[in-house]
Amino acid sequence: MRTQVAIVGAGPAGLLLSHLLHTRGIDSVVLESRDRSYVERRQRAGLLEQGTADILRDSGVGGRLDREGLVHEGLELRFGGAGHRIPLTELTGRTVTVYAQTEIVKDLIAERLSAGGDLRFESEVVAVDPSAPSVTFRKDGRTHTLDCDVIAGCDGFHGVCRPAVPTLRTFERDYPYGWLGILADVPPSTDELIYCHHERGFALHSLRSPTISRLYLQVPHDEDIARWPDERIWEELSTRFAVDSGWRLKDGQILEKGITPMRSFVAEPMRHDRLFLAGDAAHIVPPTGAKGLNLAVSDVTMLAEALVEMAEIGSEALLDSYSDNCLKRAWRAEHFSYWMTTLLHTDPSENAFGRRLRLSHLDYVVSSRAAATTLAENYVGFPL
Amino acid sequence: MRTQVAIVGAGPAGLLLSHLLHTRGIDSVVLESRDRSYVERRQRAGLLEQGTADILRDSGVGGRLDREGLVHEGLELRFGGAGHRIPLTELTGRTVTVYAQTEIVKDLIAERLSAGGDLRFESEVVAVDPSAPSVTFRKDGRTHTLDCDVIAGCDGFHGVCRPAVPTLRTFERDYPYGWLGILADVPPSTDELIYCHHERGFALHSLRSPTISRLYLQVPHDEDIARWPDERIWEELSTRFAVDSGWRLKDGQILEKGITPMRSFVAEPMRHDRLFLAGDAAHIVPPTGAKGLNLAVSDVTMLAEALVEMAEIGSEALLDSYSDNCLKRAWRAEHFSYWMTTLLHTDPSENAFGRRLRLSHLDYVVSSRAAATTLAENYVGFPL
Repeated sequence: MRTQVAIVGAGPAGLLLSHLLHTRGIDSVVLESRDRSYVERRQRAGLLEQGTADILRDSGVGGRLDREGLVHEGLELRFGGAGHRIPLTELTGRTVTVYAQTEIVKDLIAERLSAGGDLRFESEVVAVDPSAPSVTFRKDGRTHTLDCDVIAGCDGFHGVCRPAVPTLRTFERDYPYGWLGILADVPPSTDELIYCHHERGFALHSLRSPTISRLYLQVPHDEDIARWPDERIWEELSTRFAVDSGWRLKDGQILEKGITPMRSFVAEPMRHDRLFLAGDAAHIVPPTGAKGLNLAVSDVTMLAEALVEMAEIGSEALLDSYSDNCLKRAWRAEHFSYWMTTLLHTDPSENAFGRRLRLSHLDYVVSSRAAATTLAENYVGFPL
Repeated sequence: MRTQVAIVGAGPAGLLLSHLLHTRGIDSVVLESRDRSYVERRQRAGLLEQGTADILRDSGVGGRLDREGLVHEGLELRFGGAGHRIPLTELTGRTVTVYAQTEIVKDLIAERLSAGGDLRFESEVVAVDPSAPSVTFRKDGRTHTLDCDVIAGCDGFHGVCRPAVPTLRTFERDYPYGWLGILADVPPSTDELIYCHHERGFALHSLRSPTISRLYLQVPHDEDIARWPDERIWEELSTRFAVDSGWRLKDGQILEKGITPMRSFVAEPMRHDRLFLAGDAAHIVPPTGAKGLNLAVSDVTMLAEALVEMAEIGSEALLDSYSDNCLKRAWRAEHFSYWMTTLLHTDPSENAFGRRLRLSHLDYVVSSRAAATTLAENYVGFPL
């Protein structure tokens, strides 16, 4: 069995890479350990940088995104009982789009299948050989080998590809908190996302659609979800989002709830021989900056360009600079995500000086155009 | 013995306050525990925000500052073996001026004495009564009481005024490093200040005049100066400032050397009854942002305005808002100084993730106009 690019993982990174390669005449096989319905139901991020939306649109998978995505031109920072709008588009000329990752996955699977793409679900990759190069996987109880020119490791943080880089160096930071997230059957109480800092902790009011809200609460990193019956969640959300104006948080039926840990992680380099890592396989950001999905998209966009260059003119220059180019962007996102996270969360280990410092920092971000622009330009994303 | 404003401390804060009040017809007495020559020789900061230079100039003590001060329109951030200019004036429309605090002190003492001002050196204040209000001091072995309308506590971090605020709350942060500073008889190797981050630690190339350089090295907070013979200092400076271009650090005779600890400190409130704190008596910043002297000047400028308002129209509105107004500015300076300090120094407790994050942050500051502007606008100072 042979293909040009063996793609491990059918998350947004792997699926988009397969799609981008297909539009440029390069064959790939996508191997995914889970079944299709599991992959299509995973709840993840939902905020697209303008560059991410453009890549989906320009490559022909932006139809539903254009119809259902909610284009945002600002966000709110809320603290000290008052809201402050950061006018993203006025400051940067760019927008962001609310459109769930799980919808992108559905769009890409449908597109790949209708184009005759080779997506193999319930196919568990058990080994990759970056030098052969080849991928070994198990499907229906049998072991298969897929030979290829290049392996794309899009198999996430727990995948098998990253450990196949022998020179790997990892960089990591844990946070003493996580997010309790809910999906609720209630129209959002806001038109734009609200990032809220309260002395009891961070809260985020996001949205999925005009009728479905997505809300988050900072909780201790080892919190037990059983301690959070629905009623307590709504009460805590109301407390943290409280403002002096008449605004009220609407509540409704909670459809899903779960706790996500927060982690910063980077693996260097993102390449070994014919194996290239992309997305969560190489780096994890805390969700505060909404960068995880966008980084995965920029990784595979750069990888697709590099593979096209190799196929079309035989040059490996872009492949050779792939790791450095991706890591530069990844570290920018890591720094921004760390900055947003520590700016907005309370830290049980910090003293009164640190708390006052944060309030001065928040005041500065909403009162200096330059400071607001640093938030905005990172949030909407830098051009590739 | 009676005056309108009893000023404790003849540093730049107390002297400037006395001068500003005099220009508006308000009497004061300045009490200073040290002798004049000690006060005039203390080596401290030397970088004036444009607002600070304007206040000195507008109040008539800017003559020598205008002749001898060096106006700067930029600074250099150096890291990774390369320099990056931050064009302060292009980004903010404002400049900074290199002019040593000790020269300002000499100018102010000369001006006050020539105007018949009441400066009492070797007069040690032993108690302040914020309610009487009055100040008790010892001079020539005898104890005196100075009655007044208002006490200005300009007596620095170790003074007696701050403890006289019974509702005092303090906020503090120490750093695991200090600065080894030298004054050297050698023309500066640079026209603009160089703030340098190196994996061995921070270094700063500042200047005093066209022939005298001021240089600093990050050292452990408990470092023994005996471990730093002159030769080792120049060697370490050369290592940290090394760049890939042909630039070389010139060395010369070291005139003075010493180690300064780094501390962030804020006391709230800055007022109790008829006692008002100003400058280092209320807040300390690490020297990286060059904010200490400038904050002292903005404090006493606001205090002088408030006292003039009280004297001229009988309103205490400005006095009542003095503490809040000063603290807002102080916390901005605290945050900026903390930010510059942690951005540029190495931290022995941080891991590889933190080090990589800093490099991405430094890259961002020198490549984003918005980020460079946040540095620049804080560095040149906000208008009062």
